[in-house]
Amino acid sequence: MPGPVHEALDALPLVDHHCHGVVTADLTRGEFEALLTEGGTWPGSGVSPFDTPVGVAVRRHCAPLLDLPRHAGPEEYLARRAELGGGEVARRFLTAARTGVFCVDTGYAAQRLTPPAELAAAAGGTAYEVVRLESVAEEVAAGGVEADAYGAAFRAAAERAVRRPGVVAVKSVAAYRTGFDLDPARPAPAEVTGAARRWLARGGRLADPVLMRHLLWTAVDLGLPLQLHTGFGDSDIRMHRVDPTHLTDWLHLTAGTIPVLLLHCWPYQRQAGYLAAVFEQVYLDVGLTLHHVGPARARAVLEEALEITPFRKLLYSSDAFGVAEFFSLGALAFRRGLAALLQDRVDADELSLPDALRVAAWAGADNARRVYRLSGG
Amino acid sequence: MPGPVHEALDALPLVDHHCHGVVTADLTRGEFEALLTEGGTWPGSGVSPFDTPVGVAVRRHCAPLLDLPRHAGPEEYLARRAELGGGEVARRFLTAARTGVFCVDTGYAAQRLTPPAELAAAAGGTAYEVVRLESVAEEVAAGGVEADAYGAAFRAAAERAVRRPGVVAVKSVAAYRTGFDLDPARPAPAEVTGAARRWLARGGRLADPVLMRHLLWTAVDLGLPLQLHTGFGDSDIRMHRVDPTHLTDWLHLTAGTIPVLLLHCWPYQRQAGYLAAVFEQVYLDVGLTLHHVGPARARAVLEEALEITPFRKLLYSSDAFGVAEFFSLGALAFRRGLAALLQDRVDADELSLPDALRVAAWAGADNARRVYRLSGG
Amino acid sequence: MPGPVHEALDALPLVDHHCHGVVTADLTRGEFEALLTEGGTWPGSGVSPFDTPVGVAVRRHCAPLLDLPRHAGPEEYLARRAELGGGEVARRFLTAARTGVFCVDTGYAAQRLTPPAELAAAAGGTAYEVVRLESVAEEVAAGGVEADAYGAAFRAAAERAVRRPGVVAVKSVAAYRTGFDLDPARPAPAEVTGAARRWLARGGRLADPVLMRHLLWTAVDLGLPLQLHTGFGDSDIRMHRVDPTHLTDWLHLTAGTIPVLLLHCWPYQRQAGYLAAVFEQVYLDVGLTLHHVGPARARAVLEEALEITPFRKLLYSSDAFGVAEFFSLGALAFRRGLAALLQDRVDADELSLPDALRVAAWAGADNARRVYRLSGG
Repeated sequence: MPGPVHEALDALPLVDHHCHGVVTADLTRGEFEALLTEGGTWPGSGVSPFDTPVGVAVRRHCAPLLDLPRHAGPEEYLARRAELGGGEVARRFLTAARTGVFCVDTGYAAQRLTPPAELAAAAGGTAYEVVRLESVAEEVAAGGVEADAYGAAFRAAAERAVRRPGVVAVKSVAAYRTGFDLDPARPAPAEVTGAARRWLARGGRLADPVLMRHLLWTAVDLGLPLQLHTGFGDSDIRMHRVDPTHLTDWLHLTAGTIPVLLLHCWPYQRQAGYLAAVFEQVYLDVGLTLHHVGPARARAVLEEALEITPFRKLLYSSDAFGVAEFFSLGALAFRRGLAALLQDRVDADELSLPDALRVAAWAGADNARRVYRLSGG
Repeated sequence: MPGPVHEALDALPLVDHHCHGVVTADLTRGEFEALLTEGGTWPGSGVSPFDTPVGVAVRRHCAPLLDLPRHAGPEEYLARRAELGGGEVARRFLTAARTGVFCVDTGYAAQRLTPPAELAAAAGGTAYEVVRLESVAEEVAAGGVEADAYGAAFRAAAERAVRRPGVVAVKSVAAYRTGFDLDPARPAPAEVTGAARRWLARGGRLADPVLMRHLLWTAVDLGLPLQLHTGFGDSDIRMHRVDPTHLTDWLHLTAGTIPVLLLHCWPYQRQAGYLAAVFEQVYLDVGLTLHHVGPARARAVLEEALEITPFRKLLYSSDAFGVAEFFSLGALAFRRGLAALLQDRVDADELSLPDALRVAAWAGADNARRVYRLSGG
Repeated sequence: MPGPVHEALDALPLVDHHCHGVVTADLTRGEFEALLTEGGTWPGSGVSPFDTPVGVAVRRHCAPLLDLPRHAGPEEYLARRAELGGGEVARRFLTAARTGVFCVDTGYAAQRLTPPAELAAAAGGTAYEVVRLESVAEEVAAGGVEADAYGAAFRAAAERAVRRPGVVAVKSVAAYRTGFDLDPARPAPAEVTGAARRWLARGGRLADPVLMRHLLWTAVDLGLPLQLHTGFGDSDIRMHRVDPTHLTDWLHLTAGTIPVLLLHCWPYQRQAGYLAAVFEQVYLDVGLTLHHVGPARARAVLEEALEITPFRKLLYSSDAFGVAEFFSLGALAFRRGLAALLQDRVDADELSLPDALRVAAWAGADNARRVYRLSGG
């Protein structure tokens, strides 16, 4: 069954255009399970994060990399993981991912996670950084700023942040904070000041719709590619508000400016594909989704994600966070899913083999290299 | 092709956690067709409910249980059905369903349908009851109540209703009456009184958003699992308003209280799976859907429903109503669809056989037993 | 693998119930690419419309009809196309489509496109006409009309337009102009006058919600079947506003009047199927979608479109526009996709062969003949 497309994807060093660091400290079972799921852990409920598609995928595909039999049980898995230690575990999974480039979101829980350079070193790859704009805004607020200075101060802080070496993109989690059903227009300075006044008085994380619009338009001004969390995530998402087609008017207004990369997308992978098909600046991935659905369903999700999507618009990401398993599992699910999809089309003579190999290389690495202007191999 | 997972599911007595009674009286062709579809019947239109996925599934899988050849025509099918009589027909299909437990919604068209005990007796199983809260509210209104007493009167009536022996859950059809895009907060007593005044003056069925919120919060107070009609149903649904992720804020507010069981779910099975993955209290089934799409598509729907859903969160229901065929067909579609899904994963070594057997037993029976605290086998 | 259902569909002259004319003038690469995609063309971006599912499908399935090898490259393809000339190219693809009847939307870019009679002549088939109501309204406005006379003038112009020989249906692109989240009620004459005053003063295309409701209700008065663009289209769509279930209240109000045909539908093919299952007057197709996803995914989309849809409710359309390739490709994707779906069900004994052949003939031709009251074969 495996054929030349599988071989090509297996040999291709991936560009993981969106991921996070891992925790190399020792993890209790509860801590590991909390990282395994987008939900909570529910001790005593009888519902274990191991009894999920991603849980069985970890036991099937990650256990052998820890020298355990396939489908090893949770206890055995966690004992062996502890025995090897977080550093060795990370090294094994990161190596197995055969990923050459990591674009790391450093804006969330950074103190718990391996920094980009360390992550890349464990994998023998190169790291770049993605600046999470909500974190920049919240640092500006935490540092003390007058409401009427907030707009300029955030813009200046963002500019400083992206000017650091190795920064290739910015990211927004507007999906979590307000959803995408926002007024698409750039807010006037007086609106920004008013909204900043309310936010700074109230405190808490940035979730004001005017300030979120200001943040998205600041991303346009910064000129770097913008990654947008889309769809699947934890219970903080209001899924019906993060259909990315809510962004249509904003995409019209910002056409010709910055690339926009829709992350994860499930269950809106078709809607994301539609946007990628009609807007020059829109790209997408199904990271996070692929390891959560596991290799058993990764191809099905990719089939929908690619239904009308131009082949230069699909990117690979793991969206691994916390546990190194997800680097390995995300890469495996992507490689096998995409290879199966393409090879079957070749076998049915719906696609030529050279075209299939081209699409595989584009999605696995080259599309990200183009969008982020990465150098070399 | 069939393997050990098929054998295990075939041998497992199912727990049907949501169903209705059947009509054992003689049915005209028009009456039978009306029960076969969620739409109307359209005599003279040239569109017969037999010419649908569920219609061909009945002719294929139910005809042999009436001693007819597979794919028997509608006339022949109905003639044989009439010849055997409703009681014998019910007995045959209920027996074929190999269902050990039925949780029966008794709140709709109860006078036309076999009561739970009779249904279970025909199947050789056990019956429990599910109380439909809108029916309780409408009985309170019909019995005469002052607006300012409505809130307490409904609560008291609901408490009486659920205290009867055999009641294991309550149900709401908020999806039909208001949709799920409701203010999540518990309404204040004065709001309830005002809304009750308007409803009691106007009459008709309960469809007021304040009273619907009051009903859902009363369900929380009752403490029993709450079944929620979700997605697919008749033309009374406004589908775009019943995406279950509209319930996210309410689920946050009610976390730690009662289990919430999303019924049917199609075409929102992925959204339902997301909620089940991130909220401890959320469960789902694809009942009703499975027999309407038929065995030819049941697996595809289950694949989506299980994409990220924890394996302890999927339940079986037939949602059979009116015609006993749906008990048999729902059970068949579930058993074959789930077995094919799991067995293929075992064959591809994505899942161990013991895990597959565990998931099959959980979804087919044990998850419902846990949620509803049912005893025995 | 191919079986009797494939043979039957291959031999069946299709009824293409919704299409447009083609451009027979010479096309530059840019012009051809612009017709190949629902997006823009993005010269210099490195993203070519050939590197898409529809692009590879054209190279695979259309190249041989121009005497080229399968998977011929874009340059070679376009050179041969130019060499043969637009007329010969159109003749080849239209003949290959084996379509007996074309219902042609003449309301968009008509001056660039072959008129219906010429299109049908090239195919050896028969042409009917579909009147696009927004174009009628805009002609009324362009011709000069007082605001208080607009309602009657539009109605009269629409009546004249549909009285012409060969007109079998009307069409609305409300999806593009306002979306479907409209007040379902027929607007009062004073509302229409007020809205017309604003529109006539402002100019531009018709996109006023009151006038759009007036247009849809005028379609009811006209009494002909109404085609509604639904879902997939260019970047002018706000996808989240064109879920066809937003039409539910309007469908209730207009039940018993005119057939409503939902066109394209993707990614809302399940929602469209739901409406077709519960409303007598609703039909659907997945035209446009089938050639854009290509033969590799046409079956998957048809599977979802047919999940619960009554078999008398699915129609075939190509929605070909501009390039004759889409007549051939749409027909191929439909025939192969539907045949594979049905034949597999026959092979699994889920469907009898006579039933499968009946469904194939209905969807490919007879359903459209019934809805549009077309004569003959």
